[in-house]
Amino acid sequence: MLVLGFHAIEESLRGGGRGELLVCKRNSRIARLEEMAARSGVSVRVLEPRELDRIAGADHRGAVLRLEELPGPASRHGAGALAERLGELPGSTALLLLLDGLSDPHNLGAILRSADQFAVDLLVLTSRRSVRETETVLRTSSGASLYVPVATVPNLVQAMEAAKKVGFWIYGADLGGERLDKVRFEGRAALVLGAEGSGLRRLVRERCDELVRIPARGHVDSFNVSVAAGILMYEIRRQQGFAGSR
Amino acid sequence: MLVLGFHAIEESLRGGGRGELLVCKRNSRIARLEEMAARSGVSVRVLEPRELDRIAGADHRGAVLRLEELPGPASRHGAGALAERLGELPGSTALLLLLDGLSDPHNLGAILRSADQFAVDLLVLTSRRSVRETETVLRTSSGASLYVPVATVPNLVQAMEAAKKVGFWIYGADLGGERLDKVRFEGRAALVLGAEGSGLRRLVRERCDELVRIPARGHVDSFNVSVAAGILMYEIRRQQGFAGSR
Repeated sequence: MLVLGFHAIEESLRGGGRGELLVCKRNSRIARLEEMAARSGVSVRVLEPRELDRIAGADHRGAVLRLEELPGPASRHGAGALAERLGELPGSTALLLLLDGLSDPHNLGAILRSADQFAVDLLVLTSRRSVRETETVLRTSSGASLYVPVATVPNLVQAMEAAKKVGFWIYGADLGGERLDKVRFEGRAALVLGAEGSGLRRLVRERCDELVRIPARGHVDSFNVSVAAGILMYEIRRQQGFAGSR
Repeated sequence: MLVLGFHAIEESLRGGGRGELLVCKRNSRIARLEEMAARSGVSVRVLEPRELDRIAGADHRGAVLRLEELPGPASRHGAGALAERLGELPGSTALLLLLDGLSDPHNLGAILRSADQFAVDLLVLTSRRSVRETETVLRTSSGASLYVPVATVPNLVQAMEAAKKVGFWIYGADLGGERLDKVRFEGRAALVLGAEGSGLRRLVRERCDELVRIPARGHVDSFNVSVAAGILMYEIRRQQGFAGSR
């Protein structure tokens, strides 16, 4: 997988990922990355700009980190890891996001970016992705996938039950739900979103404590799933008094 | 440009677009489209499924409308059209969306989809797009671009001034702005968003009446622009008491 962006590369090197740093020019910022790489035991390779474009697309700024595996918080899997994570979450303002079978890596990337902005405490996914997909996710997320804690589980309904046991109220995004702005989000909140087009599966919908919809009156079906996720997270965080930090 | 989706095709045929209907199978829904096409003077061509896949991607459901020009509300251009449009807008709950130099057609498509859902009264763009881009926009918008009124103008600052003259308060999305949930949106609201990455240009930012930011504390720069647009439109419509219609 590829890490683009100076800040994301620095964080990845600090996180101890294995791989190599690819550079196509020299400036003070890139020299600092090279020093960090050397200290982390990550090799540095100098390429022609055209070659780096081919590997990483045109968005790199002269340096790309190619990693053998995803570093940082996104690398734990399985139900055991989930239970462990849930136990570590903060009290009344915890926000959990569960995605049921999302298929488009661009949408997942955009959701990770929003999850990073809204300081989501844990993102739960149902399927592991291919390396190629993971690269797209990282790029679309502008590196946010390096910061958002992710747990991948085999069974979303079991994950919902585990969250309920530690005090989460489960809100499902569904066109038949209550108007978002009329719902009171109190305590620990878990938000479940279904796949593009099809929405929540019946079994998942039935296990939700409450269904919510974004007030809307479009001619076409619905929002893009990453936009819907952003709006829902915003409203929950707003009610929790989330101030951000800028 | 290509129109996918039975509903969007029907609406386009009603709108009187010129072009041809491409079909690769027969069922009652497609037979109805063929009748509508015949009545509208649009020719029908039967293709192999593989050929239609090549033209329209895999998302078509057996029928695609190829149009010579964009039908419906999205086809008016220029400052005269803008002034005419602004005069037609509803009173206190009008919502105007202005995009300053957005480059990615996928983002524009997702924004159109949200604008349709939130019943945005007018979307103002600064640049005309190539036919190829317009096709991507339509596809990404799930056909919403057929329903959202769009005005393309040469100069965004002039459009902002024209909106001010008819009572719009101009809100600019900017990281240095006031917290979105603390801003009171009253009366006619116009929302301005800048390009991906760079945000509002200085001249545009200076003409805004008020700057707003989404409360956030991410490690990476910001939200995807279509997600940010969705959150901002949601909050404005929420304060305007927008109920949707489902």
